[in-house]
Amino acid sequence: MQKTIRIGIDAMGGDFAPENEIMGAVIALELFAKSKISKDFDLKIHIFGLKSKILEIAKSNNLSLEKFTIVDAPEIITMKDDPTEIIKTKKNSSLYLGLQSTKNQEIDGFVSGGNTGAMLSLSTVLLGRISGVSRPAIATFLPSAGQFPTLLIDAGATIDSKSRFLFDFAMLGSLYFQEVFSVENPTVGLLNVGEEESKGTDVLKETYQIMKESPLNFVGNVEGRDILRGNTNVVVCDGFVGNVILKFAESFTSLLKSKIKNYADKSILNKIKAAFSVPALKGVTKAFDYQEYGGVPILGVKGISIVGHGKSTPLAYANMIMRATELVHISFLQKIENFITNLSINIQ
Amino acid sequence: MQKTIRIGIDAMGGDFAPENEIMGAVIALELFAKSKISKDFDLKIHIFGLKSKILEIAKSNNLSLEKFTIVDAPEIITMKDDPTEIIKTKKNSSLYLGLQSTKNQEIDGFVSGGNTGAMLSLSTVLLGRISGVSRPAIATFLPSAGQFPTLLIDAGATIDSKSRFLFDFAMLGSLYFQEVFSVENPTVGLLNVGEEESKGTDVLKETYQIMKESPLNFVGNVEGRDILRGNTNVVVCDGFVGNVILKFAESFTSLLKSKIKNYADKSILNKIKAAFSVPALKGVTKAFDYQEYGGVPILGVKGISIVGHGKSTPLAYANMIMRATELVHISFLQKIENFITNLSINIQ
Repeated sequence: MQKTIRIGIDAMGGDFAPENEIMGAVIALELFAKSKISKDFDLKIHIFGLKSKILEIAKSNNLSLEKFTIVDAPEIITMKDDPTEIIKTKKNSSLYLGLQSTKNQEIDGFVSGGNTGAMLSLSTVLLGRISGVSRPAIATFLPSAGQFPTLLIDAGATIDSKSRFLFDFAMLGSLYFQEVFSVENPTVGLLNVGEEESKGTDVLKETYQIMKESPLNFVGNVEGRDILRGNTNVVVCDGFVGNVILKFAESFTSLLKSKIKNYADKSILNKIKAAFSVPALKGVTKAFDYQEYGGVPILGVKGISIVGHGKSTPLAYANMIMRATELVHISFLQKIENFITNLSINIQ
Repeated sequence: MQKTIRIGIDAMGGDFAPENEIMGAVIALELFAKSKISKDFDLKIHIFGLKSKILEIAKSNNLSLEKFTIVDAPEIITMKDDPTEIIKTKKNSSLYLGLQSTKNQEIDGFVSGGNTGAMLSLSTVLLGRISGVSRPAIATFLPSAGQFPTLLIDAGATIDSKSRFLFDFAMLGSLYFQEVFSVENPTVGLLNVGEEESKGTDVLKETYQIMKESPLNFVGNVEGRDILRGNTNVVVCDGFVGNVILKFAESFTSLLKSKIKNYADKSILNKIKAAFSVPALKGVTKAFDYQEYGGVPILGVKGISIVGHGKSTPLAYANMIMRATELVHISFLQKIENFITNLSINIQ
């Protein structure tokens, strides 16, 4: 018997909802059909959102939604909604219903390009935390000059900085990197203002000792410059620092384009040179492009929950669905649980 | 009567000491002669370092040091020295003697490309803090897509995060930006994980309120992406976050070069396109080049103290000396004192 992986998508989340989400679901089915997983599994996508609007968009784009399950969610979450209030006030929103379905195992994973704070807060409350994980974390890849991109964790889920939280992030990041790139026991560094063990805040000094004694492949403190260098696979920091770095990095290509435009505007010869530079730079801009990775998983919660950029394109949504599908396929949640149980370290 | 501005340089600080420092001093005199300040002032550079070594380098490079005052400093500080110990153990080092001369008003400012921690710690202890400033800060410029670069403060002097410290950084940064770019009351933003007033840690929420009620041109919270955008002149953060961002930013151009090299290596046509991209990219790489700004001032201490990159070139040292000269010329310390006195706000 062929098994079915069931992934939900929040059709009302992003800035171009629900068009991009619906297109993304259609593309995801095509990508899935070409993937190895499709040999043994089917993919069923559940679209959560305002049904009338979804059907209207499908009609105007001449799309058949026969292959999808549409779940009507009449309430809409906006960027102005307080994440902590949604759980009480918007139980019929696409985000709430999608995560509740995940919790009830009616679907195996859920993706959204909506309000990140709401996605985080609802994922944590509705799905609950994996036993042994004290705080959830967002894991994001940044480009590097090395063989692999660097995994930055936490990129904004938990802004409080405590050694126990940072160690949780290290465990989650290590396993996630291992699964995505098939690298056994990847290197893990602690983001600090210097390499010496004595550097940084008391929390970081404490975390350093915990990491050093753990079975993780801990390489010590790393600095801001090491992230893009790629000499460390997983870079651990609190969610405040991670969020600032992630947004700072995302703005780099904009600066690049702006400076090149200034240069090109100066003369026709400059314009030609600038045009030649575009393909050469594609490797860089592509590396910083969130579409490539689609979305970022919320790690540490009892469910596959992936959050994407509000500006996600259809391809980005398709990649998010595929990422969720892969994580379900490898039983990622079970792996985290086993991994954490095996790392039986006594930490206060 | 022509007045004399006296600037000291630590000849033993950088990775290529004392060659680059001595060359830098020579170039600085040339730059100064072309500057407007030279109409009413002379520049006298005091070179602090191992006298025998300095004379040897001058001889082998056929340089005359007649115009300089050489101060013999037999003890050498290395990157391994604990910054807090130097003050007791290396009183005859170039760094100690230079800052002591600054304190004793034998010179008007001091620059060094040495151990940043030592420079910070000695500047704070020997020069003391300006009344009303609770912690010193390093102010650094980052490139932006806007009219001016963005001033990031603190970039690593004070890693503890307290609202009073952050507000001090905002005051110091605001005045420094104003003086460097002649922009009246520049915009000041607080680096946070979101724009809403309710975002971030308790310390940041508290700082937000203090900033809002101050006469500073406070634009509210800004995010990581706003730094390179250039829509805010001064971005305030604690020294941990600032240090990570600064080092992360410095590594961008390395990644850029590495990705372009990968591209060029693929074919001869690619190599040609990559070569064309070099001039177009010069604006970006130049913008991230620390040499342009030379060094960064340690703000909040009672003296002009500028710290530079260990890899500083002669030109970078010359720019550091010129920056110190300009700050002395505009009576920057007096301006900070007046500015802080005028901002008479009650903060606990």
